[in-house]
Amino acid sequence: MPPSVIPTTVNPDIQKERNAASFSSEEFASFWSGGEEKLKFNRSVRDYLQKDVDVEELRQIHNKSHEEIYEQSSKSAIAAARKLQRLQKERNPGGNDYWPAMYDTQVMWGIVPGGNPFGVMYVMLVKALQAQCTPEQYEEFGKRIENFEVCGTYAQTELGHGTYLRGLETRADFDPKTDEFVLNTPKISSYKWWPGGLGHSSNHCMVMAQLYIDNKPKGPHMFYVQVRDEETHEPLPGIHIGDIGKKMGFIGVNNGFLGLKNVRIPRTRMLMRHAQVNADGSYVSSPSNVLTYFAMVRTRCVIAWNNAVMLAIAATIATRYSAVRRQSPINPKEPEPQIMDHVTQQMKLFPEIATSVAYRLASAHLWNLYDITLGDISNGRYERLPELHSLSCALKVNCSSDSTIGVERLRLACGGHGYLSSSNMGPVYVNATAACTYEGENTVLLLQIGRFLMKSWRAALSGAPLAPTVRYLAEVQKKPEFGSWTGTWENMAQAMQFAAAKKTALAFKSLSSRLSRGETEETAANHTGIELTQAAELHGRAFVFSSFTDEVTGPNAKTRSAALNQVLENLLELYLVKESLNHMANLLRFINLTDTDLTRLQDRLETVLTKLRPDAVAIVDGFDFSDVQLNSTLGSFDGNAYERIFDAAMKNPMNQKSVPKSFHEHLKPFMKSNI
Amino acid sequence: MPPSVIPTTVNPDIQKERNAASFSSEEFASFWSGGEEKLKFNRSVRDYLQKDVDVEELRQIHNKSHEEIYEQSSKSAIAAARKLQRLQKERNPGGNDYWPAMYDTQVMWGIVPGGNPFGVMYVMLVKALQAQCTPEQYEEFGKRIENFEVCGTYAQTELGHGTYLRGLETRADFDPKTDEFVLNTPKISSYKWWPGGLGHSSNHCMVMAQLYIDNKPKGPHMFYVQVRDEETHEPLPGIHIGDIGKKMGFIGVNNGFLGLKNVRIPRTRMLMRHAQVNADGSYVSSPSNVLTYFAMVRTRCVIAWNNAVMLAIAATIATRYSAVRRQSPINPKEPEPQIMDHVTQQMKLFPEIATSVAYRLASAHLWNLYDITLGDISNGRYERLPELHSLSCALKVNCSSDSTIGVERLRLACGGHGYLSSSNMGPVYVNATAACTYEGENTVLLLQIGRFLMKSWRAALSGAPLAPTVRYLAEVQKKPEFGSWTGTWENMAQAMQFAAAKKTALAFKSLSSRLSRGETEETAANHTGIELTQAAELHGRAFVFSSFTDEVTGPNAKTRSAALNQVLENLLELYLVKESLNHMANLLRFINLTDTDLTRLQDRLETVLTKLRPDAVAIVDGFDFSDVQLNSTLGSFDGNAYERIFDAAMKNPMNQKSVPKSFHEHLKPFMKSNI
Repeated sequence: MPPSVIPTTVNPDIQKERNAASFSSEEFASFWSGGEEKLKFNRSVRDYLQKDVDVEELRQIHNKSHEEIYEQSSKSAIAAARKLQRLQKERNPGGNDYWPAMYDTQVMWGIVPGGNPFGVMYVMLVKALQAQCTPEQYEEFGKRIENFEVCGTYAQTELGHGTYLRGLETRADFDPKTDEFVLNTPKISSYKWWPGGLGHSSNHCMVMAQLYIDNKPKGPHMFYVQVRDEETHEPLPGIHIGDIGKKMGFIGVNNGFLGLKNVRIPRTRMLMRHAQVNADGSYVSSPSNVLTYFAMVRTRCVIAWNNAVMLAIAATIATRYSAVRRQSPINPKEPEPQIMDHVTQQMKLFPEIATSVAYRLASAHLWNLYDITLGDISNGRYERLPELHSLSCALKVNCSSDSTIGVERLRLACGGHGYLSSSNMGPVYVNATAACTYEGENTVLLLQIGRFLMKSWRAALSGAPLAPTVRYLAEVQKKPEFGSWTGTWENMAQAMQFAAAKKTALAFKSLSSRLSRGETEETAANHTGIELTQAAELHGRAFVFSSFTDEVTGPNAKTRSAALNQVLENLLELYLVKESLNHMANLLRFINLTDTDLTRLQDRLETVLTKLRPDAVAIVDGFDFSDVQLNSTLGSFDGNAYERIFDAAMKNPMNQKSVPKSFHEHLKPFMKSNI
Repeated sequence: MPPSVIPTTVNPDIQKERNAASFSSEEFASFWSGGEEKLKFNRSVRDYLQKDVDVEELRQIHNKSHEEIYEQSSKSAIAAARKLQRLQKERNPGGNDYWPAMYDTQVMWGIVPGGNPFGVMYVMLVKALQAQCTPEQYEEFGKRIENFEVCGTYAQTELGHGTYLRGLETRADFDPKTDEFVLNTPKISSYKWWPGGLGHSSNHCMVMAQLYIDNKPKGPHMFYVQVRDEETHEPLPGIHIGDIGKKMGFIGVNNGFLGLKNVRIPRTRMLMRHAQVNADGSYVSSPSNVLTYFAMVRTRCVIAWNNAVMLAIAATIATRYSAVRRQSPINPKEPEPQIMDHVTQQMKLFPEIATSVAYRLASAHLWNLYDITLGDISNGRYERLPELHSLSCALKVNCSSDSTIGVERLRLACGGHGYLSSSNMGPVYVNATAACTYEGENTVLLLQIGRFLMKSWRAALSGAPLAPTVRYLAEVQKKPEFGSWTGTWENMAQAMQFAAAKKTALAFKSLSSRLSRGETEETAANHTGIELTQAAELHGRAFVFSSFTDEVTGPNAKTRSAALNQVLENLLELYLVKESLNHMANLLRFINLTDTDLTRLQDRLETVLTKLRPDAVAIVDGFDFSDVQLNSTLGSFDGNAYERIFDAAMKNPMNQKSVPKSFHEHLKPFMKSNI
């Protein structure tokens, strides 16, 4: 292998950008991370995890076979777990702030680049066990999972059913003679399909199955099932288990399938904190599932947060690359400019930076609401649950969808080289887009939000009080004209709310007219599906408009320097203007904007792009990703993109020999035959 | 490996769809393929190519390493070449209608699933040699390529330059002492980067380099360079060549790099049909590059055509899957419906079917214009060139971009299973999106179109005659009000033209005001970039609106059955309505649509979705893809999706042993350490 061609110096084009920035990247990083202390903590964990990691080996992941990718991912994920355990012992023995709290968080990005086959265990399984086990059960098997003495995952989705839980086909029949449940996946479509780490990594697993007692269905319940021998790792009798095959992304996560044939488990392996089956076959149903339902709010905040960060990663890579690539003179006699000087390139980069910040703030805002509501719940007050649930769905949907589109736009902004796996733009894309489907498919969630909006609209018509974040619906009912478009940030946020309310009104009208024609509520909702999803989307956008505006113009501004506030104001301006332009059809339908207003918006767009230009590199520096996290030949801090692309290509295993096997076997004989 | 679980019968849910269709899929297939004869021919070649192909082996491609993928692709591509040669001999000896005409066309899809490392040779290199070689040169080395006696590719793009050809850094210095050119890639950024098949497949290659005579630059010229020994395939002295590494897609295409260090070639290896260097160092420049420039029109038609077909592939897979998957009852007491009965699902599927047909027709239309203009050119009439060039750019940009978004929407419509590589949705996506970048990056092309629109607008203002497809600009100058929105198809097509003209006017106004403030033409164009690209996009959309409307309502309708015409009318209706809604902000800005007009459009959208519902499966059947071409567990003709997903998973190499190596090496020791 030839010596590295990567300079040890920073590319002068990117250094120049840093020198010219109007604010401190370090202050931005602190803002972005939620405070100086959090930033310091994250960095220290990240540095510890990245130390002595064989980055060159990790980077070979895309050249490997599916099986090799799994082996590498499994190895790296366990090495990281060991490190976090060590760090916990060193810095805070007996605590859990390093291990397992930091496992499968963003500090891990880049060191398990194919994804963590043991991620679901801590992200979902431990939490589910804590919520659903009796104390005795948790002591017996929950703690073993928490301690990683055994390894498990959460098996719910089946080949034939995802969204519609009541349609799950796996069944658990109670056998009172032996005090056991008998588990079966009666058809191919009943196989559990998709759980991360299920294929070859887990020896235990939580299985969602239809409980049957005396052949009578009691609905889906959770069962704790051992699937492999703890010593040999061989599948146990009646267990058919394996890997579901290559996917677009999460290539090392070992998503698996599970077939069950008369698998018997003790009765006490049904998770019985809320519902119970007694030895005599009597059944006690769960009093309420309100907390399970509420837990999803948090999960969706996490998804929005993670996807905002993925967008920030892509924005960092594309922005740095746009500072060091030079192409196509603007004026014929001038040298080729940094591509970031082309206005159309700015239009690809800066709006995505702003979008990333917008969702990061909106998810933080919702997370606060979640914490507050958690307090309410412990005082027996559940009123805000449906509202928060809807809002978290809306945030999850819009952020997953916008970040996916944004990552792809940023990838395309890198031209051909963005297509290289070594750029990491494709791999970030496939991770981002997965969030459109998992944890509630986006359209299904939009329809749920739509139904909530219909309920709220109806309640408002009857004069009933509304939850705070939908109160604007009642206001629009009372005052059905928008008034003047002034174009201030507050006015723009109000305009988006107004459009959301008017779209809700239109959907309500369509729904009502279908109901009055005799359709059932459900059939009418199906037929109104397109309008319901449109209203739901705008409801979510209005929330992001307000939370971004509040953060930038509200009291928190006092905690920041004037220079940073100016940058955040520019990002807010860009976000509101470009989003208003993107959704202009909805605004124009309900609000009177003159041609001058529209021209003014276009001017504002172009003006704020120009304002952000000198600060772009410093802003993405402020996202504070290390080179290992970015894992990109195009986006490294030093800006030596070409040399890194070159270096990565040289290390491709195909280039370690000069002539491939197929030349002698196929190509040469064929060419000879043509002479 | 367990026996196959795939039934030999057709899924009844999909059979029911076929039985209920209102028209003949076979007639649609003939329409789609450009006539019965063409359909028959394509099918016969496809069947011949697919016969005896080891489909199971091909399907393992995503589980393989980068190197194994190349070996497989090279082997399959050569096997296909041999078959086409045989077919040519059998059916039409001495002709070229099978070989090489059908190589690297859609009949090959599925049998070289990672892409063809020898594709560039026939798609680009042979054509370039034919256009640029003198007859003697073609006899000497062009024919060897054409016959596949040697293997070559076309090396233009460099690590540091793609779009901006004049910035290429590879240089060819003429050495009159030896009558040779000396080729060099002086820097890392000068390395040739990206050509398909360059890595390990080609032994010859066409290199675009800056010609220097006496150290004076003469601009980019083409040189024919041998890069590997024909017997041993070892790289020749001074040649540094290899594979650039894994990419998002085209995983088997062997995109390569090439560094040149004092590589000497005879003077006669510069392609001298148009420009010449004589032995004495005198230089004769090319009289015109109009034909080279015109050749790109055809390439862009091909790209639009191919991307329309990719969208049709994705639509076929998603539509068939939506006919066999059942999920979530619409009414609580009814069984779960085919997911295609959910209106929001229809909204994901049917618009993409319509878009695919729209672009297929638009590219056929443009192809006709191309052929007509080719006749004009041979009569020395070049007037329509800039117009056609712009139009072909617009079609390439809009089709690549819309098809990419459409494929992804369709993939998401398949839920989680669309994320499986075995669904082929991800692989189709990565191929589709590549077209946004190659053969003219989309934004760069939009800016070129924008400049053409500015010229045309200016010409119209001065009363100069305009090319036919931009004549609408002059009409709008004369009559700056739209008149009434009636919502007929013709009216909608006119509305899109009107919006394109008004956007052109706005961009022209901005550009003029910048010029009047003293900016250079180029700086002003850069600053007006966003508005220019918007106008360009609409110009392209207006063309698709008209060509789709013309085809459906024009004289060709008489050649089709009433039943097929009804289906095409439904697709046209859906296309125009959904596109008008998608671009409503632009329409509302310039045209007076009342709230009733907008409500009516929403009604029309919902109505036509309902009309298309019973015909959806039959339409995608009419796209006439074989299962091998679709290469999808979700989209096979028999509709046995679950069984095929299951079957593919079972054949994953990871499942051929029960316990992975890493369990003993990493996982078990770690778990033991936690007890």
